[in-house]
Amino acid sequence: MPEAPAVPVSTSRASVVRLMVPTDANFTGNVFGGQILSEVDKVAYISATRHAKANCVTASFDRVDFHSPVHVGDVVNFEAELTYVGRSSMEVWVRVHSEAVTGGGPRLVGQAYVTMVAVDPNGRPVPVPRLALQTGEERTRFEHGRLRMEERRRGRAPAGG
Amino acid sequence: MPEAPAVPVSTSRASVVRLMVPTDANFTGNVFGGQILSEVDKVAYISATRHAKANCVTASFDRVDFHSPVHVGDVVNFEAELTYVGRSSMEVWVRVHSEAVTGGGPRLVGQAYVTMVAVDPNGRPVPVPRLALQTGEERTRFEHGRLRMEERRRGRAPAGG
Amino acid sequence: MPEAPAVPVSTSRASVVRLMVPTDANFTGNVFGGQILSEVDKVAYISATRHAKANCVTASFDRVDFHSPVHVGDVVNFEAELTYVGRSSMEVWVRVHSEAVTGGGPRLVGQAYVTMVAVDPNGRPVPVPRLALQTGEERTRFEHGRLRMEERRRGRAPAGG
Amino acid sequence: MPEAPAVPVSTSRASVVRLMVPTDANFTGNVFGGQILSEVDKVAYISATRHAKANCVTASFDRVDFHSPVHVGDVVNFEAELTYVGRSSMEVWVRVHSEAVTGGGPRLVGQAYVTMVAVDPNGRPVPVPRLALQTGEERTRFEHGRLRMEERRRGRAPAGG
Amino acid sequence: MPEAPAVPVSTSRASVVRLMVPTDANFTGNVFGGQILSEVDKVAYISATRHAKANCVTASFDRVDFHSPVHVGDVVNFEAELTYVGRSSMEVWVRVHSEAVTGGGPRLVGQAYVTMVAVDPNGRPVPVPRLALQTGEERTRFEHGRLRMEERRRGRAPAGG
Amino acid sequence: MPEAPAVPVSTSRASVVRLMVPTDANFTGNVFGGQILSEVDKVAYISATRHAKANCVTASFDRVDFHSPVHVGDVVNFEAELTYVGRSSMEVWVRVHSEAVTGGGPRLVGQAYVTMVAVDPNGRPVPVPRLALQTGEERTRFEHGRLRMEERRRGRAPAGG
Repeated sequence: MPEAPAVPVSTSRASVVRLMVPTDANFTGNVFGGQILSEVDKVAYISATRHAKANCVTASFDRVDFHSPVHVGDVVNFEAELTYVGRSSMEVWVRVHSEAVTGGGPRLVGQAYVTMVAVDPNGRPVPVPRLALQTGEERTRFEHGRLRMEERRRGRAPAGG
Repeated sequence: MPEAPAVPVSTSRASVVRLMVPTDANFTGNVFGGQILSEVDKVAYISATRHAKANCVTASFDRVDFHSPVHVGDVVNFEAELTYVGRSSMEVWVRVHSEAVTGGGPRLVGQAYVTMVAVDPNGRPVPVPRLALQTGEERTRFEHGRLRMEERRRGRAPAGG
Repeated sequence: MPEAPAVPVSTSRASVVRLMVPTDANFTGNVFGGQILSEVDKVAYISATRHAKANCVTASFDRVDFHSPVHVGDVVNFEAELTYVGRSSMEVWVRVHSEAVTGGGPRLVGQAYVTMVAVDPNGRPVPVPRLALQTGEERTRFEHGRLRMEERRRGRAPAGG
Repeated sequence: MPEAPAVPVSTSRASVVRLMVPTDANFTGNVFGGQILSEVDKVAYISATRHAKANCVTASFDRVDFHSPVHVGDVVNFEAELTYVGRSSMEVWVRVHSEAVTGGGPRLVGQAYVTMVAVDPNGRPVPVPRLALQTGEERTRFEHGRLRMEERRRGRAPAGG
Repeated sequence: MPEAPAVPVSTSRASVVRLMVPTDANFTGNVFGGQILSEVDKVAYISATRHAKANCVTASFDRVDFHSPVHVGDVVNFEAELTYVGRSSMEVWVRVHSEAVTGGGPRLVGQAYVTMVAVDPNGRPVPVPRLALQTGEERTRFEHGRLRMEERRRGRAPAGG
Repeated sequence: MPEAPAVPVSTSRASVVRLMVPTDANFTGNVFGGQILSEVDKVAYISATRHAKANCVTASFDRVDFHSPVHVGDVVNFEAELTYVGRSSMEVWVRVHSEAVTGGGPRLVGQAYVTMVAVDPNGRPVPVPRLALQTGEERTRFEHGRLRMEERRRGRAPAGG
């Protein structure tokens, strides 16, 4: 089977803006960090499936720091793109900014590196296209992503650890 | 009070991609048209508040045709921008495209013109900045929006009609 | 195959009252117009399936004006019935009234004409029973519905228009 | 303060039809009994507030038997009305029927007697209008409701029992 | 077929703590009683399936008294275990306590006896393992459960009653 | 002001079991990793507020590996307890196990270290009680938690990094 052609990073770009409603928040109006991560995962899923043209599952989330609180009524922007691609796994970089409806400009909420794996209907990994790197920045991010992926393999705690 | 400076159309642009999940659909996997309209309203709200820097309420939806069905698992893209601005009311143009995760390219689901009104905390209309039109296309859309707004005023059914 | 017997309008009548909860609203307690439309679509779906005894999809929403705001805690009443029936398509008329729990009487929020189409499991249109018109009012509404349906066919914007 | 005029049973009548969606069901498509009870409580709340013109809280649910399963895609009908009114408490009778979209007629799912109490903003009981009984059937139901209320008072388990 | 070995009560124990969010409550911040019952049903379902190793459906809820209101922001604790087991039916005892995040200790909200029935994929009852009673308390609860089950059979209203 | 008495680890223990429903999953029945993280955050919030007796916000999530997929219908168990406490910040350790309703035993899905900070109504950090360590294991976990907290401070990427 001939190898699938490499796919540019732009194919995987996905941007979501979402208005935070009372469902997302605790009783003081603070949006739950976990609600933000749930949206991060969904946009990472969209980004990875756009590249892989296959169903994907989440393998890991790298550490996420919340730099700024999010409140009910804020408009939150999630921007995702692939940085690194292995055989079946992909690293998705997601940046999260929040902005009050009445202005003040966007604040960085946090960023995340999500590892997604393309799977067949039985949940077994399937190969994904290579990433066609087109700018120096994309090449640098790919190299950093490759280093993080190696670190994840080394650091991956054994079950129960 | 000096008039607020005009705001470019780009300020109001908002783009949302959203993965359709079983909650959005009926028991055969068809996403409800009303669920699409609910998302259209939210992105129109974001677009209008970005221009108005004030809370907004929905005044009307023009007719919406659904050109193509949407299924659970599709990624749906909503793109909004202002076309016309009156004293307190704004016309938001929202286009909706859908794409299966496994490819096939985006299909047009429909488009909508949503009229939003900026309001104060008591729900009374407040003035919004003018729209700074920068291209010929933006001027054409503004003029068409103005005509639609006049038509809406004429056609607005009296309560109970 | 002998034609199915005509079905009276009363078969398609559906009434929903729903309490608006914080999930339905933005951070100032205003219920989203799109949330109202989402409920309108669901009651129209129920109304159409009661007539068609088949799965239905939404083909279009005519223009909807919001005459009155809806707040968290309001009880909203949705009343649907068929006005016109073509070969596979049905026009559902939905009226929406809102009432504060503590009284004040119902206010008209808006009304909508929703076009639903009966479909088979592959999404292809299937014929629906004729409407058995029993009162002068039902005949007038049917005729008006027929005219609106013709207008929709003429006015249906080509994709991308 | 002169006593508030008695309010007819019809004021408290509330009818809800609701389409069961995947969110309401377990993974085999069976709608959770608790989801039905949650809807019963909401329609009972609407019924009680229509009579009391005050906020209400749920004091108890009498035993509920589920006579028939409910599936995703069924249209479920909830009909509520007051049967008995004490000083601050009201008994709401709710009947639940389910019908497949494709026909077969409604099946009784169950019925419930819900006791609601009208409360002020501090949660303290407030008096409600008397019930204006207009038919023999309403008088019979009132009397049965009164007997059930006495039984509830006797049978109410002490906390921890 | 040899009989399945009896299963201890501890196998069916299930404990859920859940933070009440605005979605669960009405506009004054009171959590709906029906929302509590919906959670009671889910934990009873988990408890019953742990014993039966089969899918289960809810057959009935005994009367539930709400001893104490629940507010948005409260942490509510649901504890379930089997008390009695028949051929296919199981009685699950669920206790509900609520606690404000800022302390004050847990308050009893209520308790429920839920009857669940193990079913095959066609919804027909299937036998479940016997309950291995290990303490005097478990034996007493089993006997009380047996008496309640007999009462339910006698008291079960005919459909439409 | 005299220092608050130290609080034992057991006070912060919180256990949640939750049935995964179609809302939590994508169209192939795989529960979203982000949905799991959202639940992890809620149980961590409960655990931290039980210790702090104050409102808390999420400061960070350490890396999370998903060892095993979760499906609709699985019962997922979340167990949380505090491991380390600073002046205002707390480290919560959450373990996640999943079990199919029909048996097979629990599988480790993953574990997370969530840093929560106690805040006043203006979102400013407030001090929390010390942790009363009672076993050797608790002391070891505290020490490891302290090391991780130092590492987080060093590794915390500057905004935009």
